[in-house]
Amino acid sequence: MTGVSAGVSGGAARRAVTSFRVRTIDGDRVLDNPDKVVTEEPMEIRVHGPGQEARALAITMRTPGNDFELAVGFCLTEGILESADDLNTVAYCLAGEGEQEYNVVTVSLRRRVVLDVPERRFVANASCGLCGKTTLDEVEQHCEPVADGPMVGTSVVAALPERLRAAQSVFEATGGLHASGLFTPDGDLVAVREDVGRHNALDKLIGHAVLERRLPLSNTILMVSGRVSFEIVQKAAIAGIPIVCAVSAPSSLAVEAADRFGQTLVGFVRGERANVYAHSERVDVGR
Amino acid sequence: MTGVSAGVSGGAARRAVTSFRVRTIDGDRVLDNPDKVVTEEPMEIRVHGPGQEARALAITMRTPGNDFELAVGFCLTEGILESADDLNTVAYCLAGEGEQEYNVVTVSLRRRVVLDVPERRFVANASCGLCGKTTLDEVEQHCEPVADGPMVGTSVVAALPERLRAAQSVFEATGGLHASGLFTPDGDLVAVREDVGRHNALDKLIGHAVLERRLPLSNTILMVSGRVSFEIVQKAAIAGIPIVCAVSAPSSLAVEAADRFGQTLVGFVRGERANVYAHSERVDVGR
Repeated sequence: MTGVSAGVSGGAARRAVTSFRVRTIDGDRVLDNPDKVVTEEPMEIRVHGPGQEARALAITMRTPGNDFELAVGFCLTEGILESADDLNTVAYCLAGEGEQEYNVVTVSLRRRVVLDVPERRFVANASCGLCGKTTLDEVEQHCEPVADGPMVGTSVVAALPERLRAAQSVFEATGGLHASGLFTPDGDLVAVREDVGRHNALDKLIGHAVLERRLPLSNTILMVSGRVSFEIVQKAAIAGIPIVCAVSAPSSLAVEAADRFGQTLVGFVRGERANVYAHSERVDVGR
Repeated sequence: MTGVSAGVSGGAARRAVTSFRVRTIDGDRVLDNPDKVVTEEPMEIRVHGPGQEARALAITMRTPGNDFELAVGFCLTEGILESADDLNTVAYCLAGEGEQEYNVVTVSLRRRVVLDVPERRFVANASCGLCGKTTLDEVEQHCEPVADGPMVGTSVVAALPERLRAAQSVFEATGGLHASGLFTPDGDLVAVREDVGRHNALDKLIGHAVLERRLPLSNTILMVSGRVSFEIVQKAAIAGIPIVCAVSAPSSLAVEAADRFGQTLVGFVRGERANVYAHSERVDVGR
């Protein structure tokens, strides 16, 4: 992966923030001024192995920046990529005149890619009595339970939201961004990624860890800015993250998945308060 | 569609809220109590026309309830369904023993269904110079600009967030839900729908309107609980909604799409303040 690291940030040429002329109304007063809005643009992720033609894996609406990390993280959490060893190159598509096409990222693997899931999805012929189960199986990636993981003190958990917010650069300007932050068990920031999409922010963070060869993330805590859905928990589990914390509420399937994957799930982290929804044995109260 | 209306709510047998045993930590105090969490479950949407086998269109993670509306709204905003006249039946899949399978909804149309988009997505062979454009074209559904639409006073806009919140039934219990509300130009509530997924809440609301034969929604205001992405604006435009308001920030592509589709886009509606990002001519300041 040394050939990729020079361009690892990806999307440096695109802006995470876009300016518009906005009419601000405050009671009877009206002001027309430029204001900043978080950028949202489609990005197509293509994959191929040796001798294979690149195929579109997904189109995601994302905030430009860390595009290569997003592509790599998405490939990992969708089960296309197993480790950094599988990676050959990550690159923007080249347009006709040799210019880069910043909304298309191609991930080239060292082994052949089998994309069976999407095709399966469109020939869903399971007998009806089983179809709910089949669906769930399709949604759920193969995922080993996480390793033991560290203990975390409640004072560390309480400090995470403010540390995450402080590390967000684009949110301040626009108020419109999700963030995923990776922390040590002592609450020190490892990395933070932002995106208009909650899943993208986490995929960027995981992609960053893949490219830095830090997987599995078995000695870390994930802190997310909003709610926790099933997919957030599953992506974290695939990356080996044992503790997931969030500012807001989890969903039922997020709680069930965390329980099954052996992850500690903490929600509503606000001031001194927090709710632990799964595997509370890792939370050291009063420390 | 009279054959469907009896079961229109869909998912009555599933709960929107799930109880878990939760450890609440507050400083040094620990309480283990049952707590309510918003339910998230996968739902597969299948479609078919006369003589066609049902094919899976999508699997969405949703909060059970109004499942038929969700399926119908999704079909409309994805361009599979053009109007209520196309609908034959909407039904849960029947399991082997005659029991309903509540996570699979089949939409039967009166005309044959052509699902070309997903296949196109996996044979994306456009020349590189055009691929960004091709991607955008795929993302963007065919969508006429909205009709003129009503005027709305700023006092009406200011009242919408509280009216939306008051109409939410599941949020109070769990704190974990997105809402989409449809209002008259005078700010009276027409309908509200909630979901763990922002897009699902709007698809349910639009599906409700399709089944009630209210489309196009040219004399209404949409109020959403969170942020506004491109897809929210696009779905609203397909349903003919001329004014979109949100508690939080829009994305850049949401602003650009609203401008192009002729929609008024209002964000950060908080107290007396609001930001108008597109087509401010419909906002009557001080009224």
